[in-house]
Amino acid sequence: MRMRSRLTAGGTCPGSLREDVGATAILFAVFVRYDPDADAALWHWGNRSSSDNEFYFRYPSFQDVHVMVFVGFGFLMAFLQRYGFSSVAFTFLLAAFALQWATLVQGFFHSMHGGRIHVGVQSMINADFCAAAVLISFGAVLGKTGPVQLLLMALLEVLLFGLNEFVLLSVLGVKDAGGSMTIHTFGAYFGLALSRVLYRPQLEKSRHRQGSVYHSDLFAMIGTIFLWTFWPSFNSAPTMPGDGQHRTSLNTYYSLTASTLSTFALSALVGEHGRLDMVHIQNAALAGGVVVGTSGEMMLTPFGALAAGFLAGTVSTLGFKFFTPVLEAKFKVQDTCGVHNLHGMPGVLGALLGVLVAGLATHEAYGDGLGSVFPLVAGGRRSATAQAVFQLCGLLVTLTFASVGGGLGGLLLRLPFLGPPPDSQCFEDRIYW
Amino acid sequence: MRMRSRLTAGGTCPGSLREDVGATAILFAVFVRYDPDADAALWHWGNRSSSDNEFYFRYPSFQDVHVMVFVGFGFLMAFLQRYGFSSVAFTFLLAAFALQWATLVQGFFHSMHGGRIHVGVQSMINADFCAAAVLISFGAVLGKTGPVQLLLMALLEVLLFGLNEFVLLSVLGVKDAGGSMTIHTFGAYFGLALSRVLYRPQLEKSRHRQGSVYHSDLFAMIGTIFLWTFWPSFNSAPTMPGDGQHRTSLNTYYSLTASTLSTFALSALVGEHGRLDMVHIQNAALAGGVVVGTSGEMMLTPFGALAAGFLAGTVSTLGFKFFTPVLEAKFKVQDTCGVHNLHGMPGVLGALLGVLVAGLATHEAYGDGLGSVFPLVAGGRRSATAQAVFQLCGLLVTLTFASVGGGLGGLLLRLPFLGPPPDSQCFEDRIYW
Amino acid sequence: MRMRSRLTAGGTCPGSLREDVGATAILFAVFVRYDPDADAALWHWGNRSSSDNEFYFRYPSFQDVHVMVFVGFGFLMAFLQRYGFSSVAFTFLLAAFALQWATLVQGFFHSMHGGRIHVGVQSMINADFCAAAVLISFGAVLGKTGPVQLLLMALLEVLLFGLNEFVLLSVLGVKDAGGSMTIHTFGAYFGLALSRVLYRPQLEKSRHRQGSVYHSDLFAMIGTIFLWTFWPSFNSAPTMPGDGQHRTSLNTYYSLTASTLSTFALSALVGEHGRLDMVHIQNAALAGGVVVGTSGEMMLTPFGALAAGFLAGTVSTLGFKFFTPVLEAKFKVQDTCGVHNLHGMPGVLGALLGVLVAGLATHEAYGDGLGSVFPLVAGGRRSATAQAVFQLCGLLVTLTFASVGGGLGGLLLRLPFLGPPPDSQCFEDRIYW
Repeated sequence: MRMRSRLTAGGTCPGSLREDVGATAILFAVFVRYDPDADAALWHWGNRSSSDNEFYFRYPSFQDVHVMVFVGFGFLMAFLQRYGFSSVAFTFLLAAFALQWATLVQGFFHSMHGGRIHVGVQSMINADFCAAAVLISFGAVLGKTGPVQLLLMALLEVLLFGLNEFVLLSVLGVKDAGGSMTIHTFGAYFGLALSRVLYRPQLEKSRHRQGSVYHSDLFAMIGTIFLWTFWPSFNSAPTMPGDGQHRTSLNTYYSLTASTLSTFALSALVGEHGRLDMVHIQNAALAGGVVVGTSGEMMLTPFGALAAGFLAGTVSTLGFKFFTPVLEAKFKVQDTCGVHNLHGMPGVLGALLGVLVAGLATHEAYGDGLGSVFPLVAGGRRSATAQAVFQLCGLLVTLTFASVGGGLGGLLLRLPFLGPPPDSQCFEDRIYW
Repeated sequence: MRMRSRLTAGGTCPGSLREDVGATAILFAVFVRYDPDADAALWHWGNRSSSDNEFYFRYPSFQDVHVMVFVGFGFLMAFLQRYGFSSVAFTFLLAAFALQWATLVQGFFHSMHGGRIHVGVQSMINADFCAAAVLISFGAVLGKTGPVQLLLMALLEVLLFGLNEFVLLSVLGVKDAGGSMTIHTFGAYFGLALSRVLYRPQLEKSRHRQGSVYHSDLFAMIGTIFLWTFWPSFNSAPTMPGDGQHRTSLNTYYSLTASTLSTFALSALVGEHGRLDMVHIQNAALAGGVVVGTSGEMMLTPFGALAAGFLAGTVSTLGFKFFTPVLEAKFKVQDTCGVHNLHGMPGVLGALLGVLVAGLATHEAYGDGLGSVFPLVAGGRRSATAQAVFQLCGLLVTLTFASVGGGLGGLLLRLPFLGPPPDSQCFEDRIYW
Repeated sequence: MRMRSRLTAGGTCPGSLREDVGATAILFAVFVRYDPDADAALWHWGNRSSSDNEFYFRYPSFQDVHVMVFVGFGFLMAFLQRYGFSSVAFTFLLAAFALQWATLVQGFFHSMHGGRIHVGVQSMINADFCAAAVLISFGAVLGKTGPVQLLLMALLEVLLFGLNEFVLLSVLGVKDAGGSMTIHTFGAYFGLALSRVLYRPQLEKSRHRQGSVYHSDLFAMIGTIFLWTFWPSFNSAPTMPGDGQHRTSLNTYYSLTASTLSTFALSALVGEHGRLDMVHIQNAALAGGVVVGTSGEMMLTPFGALAAGFLAGTVSTLGFKFFTPVLEAKFKVQDTCGVHNLHGMPGVLGALLGVLVAGLATHEAYGDGLGSVFPLVAGGRRSATAQAVFQLCGLLVTLTFASVGGGLGGLLLRLPFLGPPPDSQCFEDRIYW
């Protein structure tokens, strides 16, 4: 049985990757061009100062996001005692794949100019964001899916991510810079729906491998801490230059400190004899970044950021303690990394916070900056209340896309020739390495 | 005994944190506002170019500092064989707490505008600096204090840090951008005084856990190397834009290479059979960053930076080899991480180097840049010699605040209900996790 | 025997380092000065805006490069089961030494102004690049050389690196921003030639230590992922501000995703039962960064970047699988880290790609940006074809310098008093720590 699993997975993986790489390359050749800030002829045609190049407003933040995607997610998932290679390396594989594919999908939806997709530092950030959503879904099925299944999941998820993002940002005019909805809510519920369809009643056979050991928890903390330190860049990377990026990073910074303190407090409170739980620290402390993903660019106020982070850390820690067991026992959703607690609930909270803060927007609070944050409101085409309603619609659309898409994805991944690991070999590196 | 320790520590930790978070949130709601570069209305009122926003001059450096505080300090202290969880996670807790609290304390001392504290990228950097001082003190008592004790320590230390910083920078007009005095000297002697008061004559009972194992030393090297690579950003983050940040990062870069070479040379020289000692490499190699904390923004010259780094690496390595045992045996100071060698002595050296370089400042060497580095000298309100004398006073004030404050802090931390680990359970993760 | 090795290595290491540090310090005092963007008097004399300071165009990229050199190379080489301390710490030592020495050597060759070497953010990047070449060579002899040998190697290699770089960039007018030739090809073949001369027929005695263990492979992945994420900064750090840096980072980003996908596909294809090999993932996935080191700043097109990365990942993985054993068996080159596969072949490929893309340069494709990328072609002093021929000459010159220099270096390192580890103690930390 183990042998077959390897053969199948191995035999198909290079084949599917080769075909994909070929198809992607052709699409790149036909459609993808440098945007004017990255093109030698177009940039110099404008006679602009070098310091006006978009690169200098976004590249340092892009690099932080890049580290979060590859180091942060990769090592955070390395907490499993015998799945460290696969956690880090499949993150590497999936994210690299998603970056290429998202460039095309997001390009078709958002940045076609004269039949060509323009790429530059903004498209690099957007593609990394899409990869983050794929990795969140990966967290839900970690250890229970083979690389071919994961690549297929990424193929489908990137498509739906692009479509959902298009509906929210371009059709509904929703604001969601740091992706409480488009990234966290979408990625979490897509992964959870997928995990539900792939439910393994016999997972007990591998349960002894589902925990961590001392060193694997330290490796996971590398992931946690890099995610935590760079999250202000994640939320601010795509916002408007100037006060927009400044305020977003500040709000995220405060929200994260609050979620960290509430996580420690709650973890000790619900722990046996007041002890702390490494799972909470590794995950729930990050919920403060998720919860201000929508409202971080708005005039949330530093107090609002603290309160949001405190709430998110609390909800996330309680989720890990009390809700994850219920999720598996009652709803048959096996959520390896607890993405429901870190990305799902805090993402929904973040979307609702966005509804609230958008609804409270006034010309007085934003001044001439209202046009940057809420262009439709500033232009008189929408009231702040209407913007809030659209924000709420955005959440509902996202939940629908994610759960339906994840369900379909799960059915697809049940195709027998995709080489899933047997129940007794889940959370095990040895079958792939 | 172990049981009680857990209960106490656990029972109090969430309680004290909850109260703190509530109090902080109220103070934020009343006092803390976005600074004009982060506020939508205020920024757009000015009609300035996005690229002039303070964010772009300091945010990349801020992110490097943030990594140093959370990844650097956290993993550097993970060298203990059974205290890796607590090293990384208590760093996380203490620093997150210090960031919030320092925002308020430093705001009251330094950036009140119309009764409000303005926050932005500069306050983020300043708060991280304050957190660094708290973590230095943490290094002195690592493994011998519980989380409630540590939070109380941070509460007091942030207050005194803010006061000391105010006296130096605002009252005395001392220059100390990278914090040789305000961060390193203060943090080290505060922690050492505190450790003196908390002296444990029976620490032998836990001595077998005070060393490292192979993997824990590698985790510690993650901390070392990130501290080392990002230190140029640490010292330059708060200096004047333009040549100021440029020169400071350059001086720090050279100083660190020199302290690294001298550490390797000295470590082999004093080692048995010429062998190297991982403790020296992990710590003393960083002394070059500490020693130019005051003078890095001045016209130290590249040669001066090399010489300073060489001296600091030498002193620090010799300290680890010969002085740490004496410190414990004669002075009853148990300094777990050797902060006296990495932050204490190099910090004092750095302050003295600042005295020297400030005293040598001339209009010829600084040109019109004198106003940026020594505004009081440029404005004719002080001679260079007077500036040097004030710099020296700054060192003495810092040493006084740190040792008296640390001593008082130690007395406070001896309160019996704070849940210190028993002598036989020091350097042990198991009682908290 | 072990005792003598320690004594010799230990006895000489501090001595040689002390002398070196002294000599370097004197040369710094005489020759090295701040460049005008870092000098208080010179910068303020110009009355320029702070945001025009070179610092803001290059410092964030410099920091990424710095992390790659110290964290990336250091941990990538920590894959050996009992050589983690030495991998990380000798990287630290060699790179710190190389930074100082390269500042002098590159300064003499490239940036003498009125008899003085000007240093600033550009010289910091250049010195880090030189250190990278030294670390590539270190990879070829990893575990088989003592620290005194390594310092001597660095002493010689930095000199030759500077000379080769001077011939290519200043004499031949070759473009090679990301160093496919000057860094990767040079570093690899220098190290391989050196390893050839130091061939150990009895290395079997230490072969049981030449592999990895589970945790050492995870530490190595820290190195891999940081190299991967920051490589766009490596290639773009020294290119022209504006579209130049923007385009280079974009090309590198795409190339790396392609090399990652092709590495996974090939690794599974050539692996037993379709399993993946951690060595391939850790190394060959990075070949995409190497291969666009020359052409990344040119109008390679996103498709060109994908194709180049795909090719490089393929060649590199096949090299690890099939060529490394041949290299040792037939050519007597023991290449510990497989630098021939990651830096050698992809470096040569990258140089040839540069020949091709340079030869295809037209005024139409580059517009007024031609002057930035190919100043000699834009100025009419050379045709694109001539530029291509010069690029090819650059490769040949590099191969010659590297192999002759490495061979001479090997002879030098065979001097008996340099303390090499005995055949039975290779890949072993215990003799140094």
